Amino acid sequence: MSAELDDPVYRTGVVDLLGALAYGELTAFERLAEDAALAPTLLDKAELGAMASAEFGHFTRLQERLSALGVDAYAAMEPFRATFDNFHAHTAPADWPEGLVKAHVGDGLAADFYREIAAYLDTGTRTLILETLADTGHSAFVVARVRRIISEQPAVGGRLALWGRRLVGEALSQAQVVVAERDGLSLLLAGGVDRPGMDLAAIGRMFARLTENHSGRMAALGLSA
Amino acid sequence: MSAELDDPVYRTGVVDLLGALAYGELTAFERLAEDAALAPTLLDKAELGAMASAEFGHFTRLQERLSALGVDAYAAMEPFRATFDNFHAHTAPADWPEGLVKAHVGDGLAADFYREIAAYLDTGTRTLILETLADTGHSAFVVARVRRIISEQPAVGGRLALWGRRLVGEALSQAQVVVAERDGLSLLLAGGVDRPGMDLAAIGRMFARLTENHSGRMAALGLSA
Repeated sequence: MSAELDDPVYRTGVVDLLGALAYGELTAFERLAEDAALAPTLLDKAELGAMASAEFGHFTRLQERLSALGVDAYAAMEPFRATFDNFHAHTAPADWPEGLVKAHVGDGLAADFYREIAAYLDTGTRTLILETLADTGHSAFVVARVRRIISEQPAVGGRLALWGRRLVGEALSQAQVVVAERDGLSLLLAGGVDRPGMDLAAIGRMFARLTENHSGRMAALGLSA
Repeated sequence: MSAELDDPVYRTGVVDLLGALAYGELTAFERLAEDAALAPTLLDKAELGAMASAEFGHFTRLQERLSALGVDAYAAMEPFRATFDNFHAHTAPADWPEGLVKAHVGDGLAADFYREIAAYLDTGTRTLILETLADTGHSAFVVARVRRIISEQPAVGGRLALWGRRLVGEALSQAQVVVAERDGLSLLLAGGVDRPGMDLAAIGRMFARLTENHSGRMAALGLSA
């Protein structure tokens, strides 16, 4: 374990972050498995299932890390349940294409956000987070499927573009609630005397990068952001 | 690949069997993930999620094996969709305890059945099937949970005992439909000139063993079979 984790403020922030990430992976697993039920073909079902299983594997690693820190993973996840559950309740896909876009856009945005934060963490935690977020190679499947759906039914493209915007809006508003409620996370982002952090300008630049990457993902899907 | 697989009749039977097993694992994954949504605690949710992910891992291995045999896994699964979907449609758990019992009893019965058949197969296929069915260590969780539920709400025990009987009845009737419809499977069971098979007496003994094991599992859960 890194020496940074001896600092109780830093440690609390890291436990919060891992708890949020773990619960996020667990709900992502659940939602992807649910979306697999909407899949039009067995191949689609299996692809979504593979994504769901990969998320569950990530959850297991995060749970193990929390245990190694002497923390009950379930207690660490609990503060983030309401936020993630609200996000998913407000963004339940109405059909298969919406599920695909959510899987891709939601995953991408969450991964970008955690990667940004990982840059400010100790090596051990950073490595774990980056490995957890490593692209599992399923994006290509989603991109190809969404592009085909839009080429076959152009009208669906407009609806999915709106859907993408709603997903981002909802994600950002839930992220704000989390940071506002959890001092540990805010302090983690703010840094400390011997630890770099983000000032307001840096946070602004981070959001600019997140938004830019999101637009890139929407464009790859053939959708306007 | 074993020499047995050069025999087209044997090969057709094996492809059928692997297709049925693969689709069974894929639907088991889906149902367990769905049941995880009913879980009363995060710990329960994670346990069911782990079972679901393990099933998906099995599905992936079977899919790879079918590809190695030069067969499209999705085409091999297709003939078994209706049967498994019917089974699940007729045995949708009404609540969390029913989901737990179904996970345990259904998994156990399926595993016993495939293990019985594996004894008549070439070494490569047999090893794959036995490894696919290896207990992933989650049974202990289900047994403990069901026993606690019954000790807290004894009335639930009677309902779950009936539920267990319905699960077996439905499973056996669907299994009969499959064997009746798929000549490849019947021929696999019947054996060939240079390959041992099951005569009617052996099939009878197999069903006796399946029923006995089922009763044992119900007893372990604290339920009368």
